[in-house]
Amino acid sequence: MTDTRCVTVAVDAMGGDFAPSEILLGVERGLAADSALHVVLVGSADVVEAFAATHDRCEAVPTTQVIGMDEHPATAVRTKKDSSIVVGARLVKDGRAHAYFSAGSTGAAMAAATLIMGRIRGVQRPAIATVIPTAGAPVVLLDVGANADCKPEHIAQFAHMGAAYADTVLGVARPRISLLNIGEEPTKGSQLAQEAHALMTERVPGFVGNIEGRDVLAGHTDVIVTDGFTGNVALKLLEGSSKTLLGQVREVLTASLVTKLASLPLKGGLTALKNRLDPDTYGGAPLLGVDGVCIIGHGSSKAKAVSNALRVSAQAARGNLTDQIAAAVTDDRAQASTSA
Amino acid sequence: MTDTRCVTVAVDAMGGDFAPSEILLGVERGLAADSALHVVLVGSADVVEAFAATHDRCEAVPTTQVIGMDEHPATAVRTKKDSSIVVGARLVKDGRAHAYFSAGSTGAAMAAATLIMGRIRGVQRPAIATVIPTAGAPVVLLDVGANADCKPEHIAQFAHMGAAYADTVLGVARPRISLLNIGEEPTKGSQLAQEAHALMTERVPGFVGNIEGRDVLAGHTDVIVTDGFTGNVALKLLEGSSKTLLGQVREVLTASLVTKLASLPLKGGLTALKNRLDPDTYGGAPLLGVDGVCIIGHGSSKAKAVSNALRVSAQAARGNLTDQIAAAVTDDRAQASTSA
Repeated sequence: MTDTRCVTVAVDAMGGDFAPSEILLGVERGLAADSALHVVLVGSADVVEAFAATHDRCEAVPTTQVIGMDEHPATAVRTKKDSSIVVGARLVKDGRAHAYFSAGSTGAAMAAATLIMGRIRGVQRPAIATVIPTAGAPVVLLDVGANADCKPEHIAQFAHMGAAYADTVLGVARPRISLLNIGEEPTKGSQLAQEAHALMTERVPGFVGNIEGRDVLAGHTDVIVTDGFTGNVALKLLEGSSKTLLGQVREVLTASLVTKLASLPLKGGLTALKNRLDPDTYGGAPLLGVDGVCIIGHGSSKAKAVSNALRVSAQAARGNLTDQIAAAVTDDRAQASTSA
Repeated sequence: MTDTRCVTVAVDAMGGDFAPSEILLGVERGLAADSALHVVLVGSADVVEAFAATHDRCEAVPTTQVIGMDEHPATAVRTKKDSSIVVGARLVKDGRAHAYFSAGSTGAAMAAATLIMGRIRGVQRPAIATVIPTAGAPVVLLDVGANADCKPEHIAQFAHMGAAYADTVLGVARPRISLLNIGEEPTKGSQLAQEAHALMTERVPGFVGNIEGRDVLAGHTDVIVTDGFTGNVALKLLEGSSKTLLGQVREVLTASLVTKLASLPLKGGLTALKNRLDPDTYGGAPLLGVDGVCIIGHGSSKAKAVSNALRVSAQAARGNLTDQIAAAVTDDRAQASTSA
């Protein structure tokens, strides 16, 4: 049964390379797709008030400041208290929205969410997750960049948070969780990977062992955890290699008049493939572990990415993602203190 | 001018999933392609003697032991002194061969080369490199798995070794060297990456800064250095994603009779693309930093990979790869002690 409880998402209208026009277009589509969705649009008065005046279920919260892509995240969040990024996060903290979406500076959105919403009790390090299309079902990968240096216990917490997200947003009831590593055996890998493996074997239900780089896209697991350095390299490599490879395929198809004509009947299938690989389909990256739903969009987010991010935000809020993470982390800590 | 000095390569006839037949076929092709190439074939007497008897420029060195893929590398190398993997490395140490190739257990080949040939004076950690096809010129990536845990000074040495390899084997006179990282600015990344960046800025000529995952295949650099954990994940992700993507493209092409007919004129171009992406074209991964040329083949090496590995081995030996690495490392240490 589809959950149609009403849900309110705070949206940063000023964030991203194509703001505000593509953000507004995405909000419009998101509102049209979900009749129980409400949006609080945060940004310059002229932008948000005009839009809210002409759209149902949309409220405007005007702000006077904007945080640029190249400002120091924590400093900008502390000093620009009336920026759209900061005010959006505060709306969740104050109970005026269930979820928060921004396609602005990732660092600033992360800092705003962490500093203003705060962490869920017991969470050591919030992590950024992303959903990757594979040959099978999509997989949740985290951390993809919030924590360049991690300890084994951080990675074990990522597993709990990723599992809650797979359950809530992808509908996977008992997610299989894998550790990204450079061999299948428990004794393989860096010291960090080996210690994380040992900890997860003991404490993470659903942990199925190591996964190697070559199997990430095979679709054999639901959640892949790693430190934020390796995860970020992996995510960007996948983005880069899809783009390069599809570009090379396109070169073959358009090499001559003959190949151009020949490839006409293939267009539909190739476009479908391209769409399936398009990260915009999965609508932004959740910052897991903060006390409230927070979805951070790519700087290059267009309307499609924004409307998908709204869908994901609503799903996460309706599925009580934050409570699920809180419960999993509390259980984990109880188990840790019992076994200690 | 092509270097045609004669060169002798010791080949492990027993290593790899398709040994000995594909190894022998590869040696046959390698010998045919280079009239100044000599091979010392190491393995079971019945295999190597029969082949050597019927091929010019091929000598047989019979051995009685074989190291399996699942044996503990260092232990196997210490106890099985008459195995093809160990004897092949010893032939280089004893001056009977310029280079050594094995497609057997990577761990055992690495252990044999390190323990028997020894490290080049001043090299702290030998590293495995690999050549990746990109949208532009191919790029040397290292370490791809020899050292799961690294220090900044190891990564700086990888830069010198990778540069020597790019010069010798790919013919790039002044290679551009990049550090795999999760942002472009020097202050981005893990503590390891930040310290490696600082060290390389000071001591590595040709260092051009950080490179992100999405640009690895862009062809804007010649050598990419990273720790062996990240490098191994990256390499296997690239292998996996090429395979998955090309498989999905093939599915589109073969979806119906219409698409099958339509894709006929595209076959030539797609096969050429597949070949260009095929890692076998670059013939195995060099173990850099050991005192002698050592190329380790994939376990799945077939004849094409073997003959390419022989070509690469000969190039590295003729280009005095080992001396180049020794000189670069000595210079680097001299500079380090001056600046200290």
